[in-house]
Amino acid sequence: MKMAMAGLYKRVLPSPAVDFASSDGKQLFIKAIQNGTLEGFYRLISYFQTQSEPAYCGLASLSMVLNALAIDPGRKWKGPWRWFDESMLDCCEPLEKVKEKGISFGKLVCLAHCAGAKVEAFRTNQSSLDDFRIFVVRCSTSDERHIISSYHRSIFKQTGTGHFSPLGGYHAGRDMALILDVARFKYPPHWVPLKLLW
Amino acid sequence: MKMAMAGLYKRVLPSPAVDFASSDGKQLFIKAIQNGTLEGFYRLISYFQTQSEPAYCGLASLSMVLNALAIDPGRKWKGPWRWFDESMLDCCEPLEKVKEKGISFGKLVCLAHCAGAKVEAFRTNQSSLDDFRIFVVRCSTSDERHIISSYHRSIFKQTGTGHFSPLGGYHAGRDMALILDVARFKYPPHWVPLKLLW
Repeated sequence: MKMAMAGLYKRVLPSPAVDFASSDGKQLFIKAIQNGTLEGFYRLISYFQTQSEPAYCGLASLSMVLNALAIDPGRKWKGPWRWFDESMLDCCEPLEKVKEKGISFGKLVCLAHCAGAKVEAFRTNQSSLDDFRIFVVRCSTSDERHIISSYHRSIFKQTGTGHFSPLGGYHAGRDMALILDVARFKYPPHWVPLKLLW
Repeated sequence: MKMAMAGLYKRVLPSPAVDFASSDGKQLFIKAIQNGTLEGFYRLISYFQTQSEPAYCGLASLSMVLNALAIDPGRKWKGPWRWFDESMLDCCEPLEKVKEKGISFGKLVCLAHCAGAKVEAFRTNQSSLDDFRIFVVRCSTSDERHIISSYHRSIFKQTGTGHFSPLGGYHAGRDMALILDVARFKYPPHWVPLKLLW
């Protein structure tokens, strides 16, 4: 008899999200590469990481992007190495508070500035879906700009609440974006309809 | 005047290795995808991580592969989640010893077994370059098998000594393998000639 195991081993990814490593996900990926809307993927995926605390999705997303942008933190991480880690993002909001409650959109923007990134922030009530799409295309066709998306899990029928994760690319034909979910102990990277993400 | 900063911000990747995110690296990637020798990449890259200690390259490589194989650790990591982390690979060799001295090839094989993986180990003095190539092709065309490579940094003119990292794929035309270097604070993922890796 196998004992019931306390705790959770991942969650089933609900539709309409498409698992990055599924057959459909691979097709989306190849087509997006051919169309030039996965140019930013290479650098970003090189620094894909797991959020180390349940409320660190914002910090993990930002540390991925800062490393992908090759911004030198000017501080040592471990040994002689300078490298961005969530634990070094101790500006704008105390880490203890982030650990407990997560981080707001505004505070994450502040933190990205502090860390040396050039930031443009877009809020849904101050821009449109078309603006968002234009920006997603601009970032996915370059490897010098990356997007961190802030959304509510319920939009995709996923368990959980507010969440941050970077976008790895875009598929124009099906108007889908690739979410590199930093809570990857729960959901794998997945493609979602851009309209829902907005 | 800019002050000299103690510590290191990455290393320049020496030839013949080709940076994954360079123009040449992207071409190698696209061709390998078309040839079906990047099938294992999707799952593996979904769990790409940084080694958390200077001597944890073996543990980080193994935890990537265990997560990519979707092996349930049967133990909780953080919160309710079961997920492989280097700190949970505490079998075969005490973690304190690994932290100080790294892990041997044999002990890493033992550890992979303990964690629930089905393992085949190939040593250079017991097999050939052709065997290795056959095995790399077999793994890169499937997403159910992954390779962790053990090699000496000096072969690629890289600083450092013995190192472990998983292979993300293979390019048949140029006979090159993609190393997903877990010491990514130092070198980005890169393609290398298979002959040198052997």
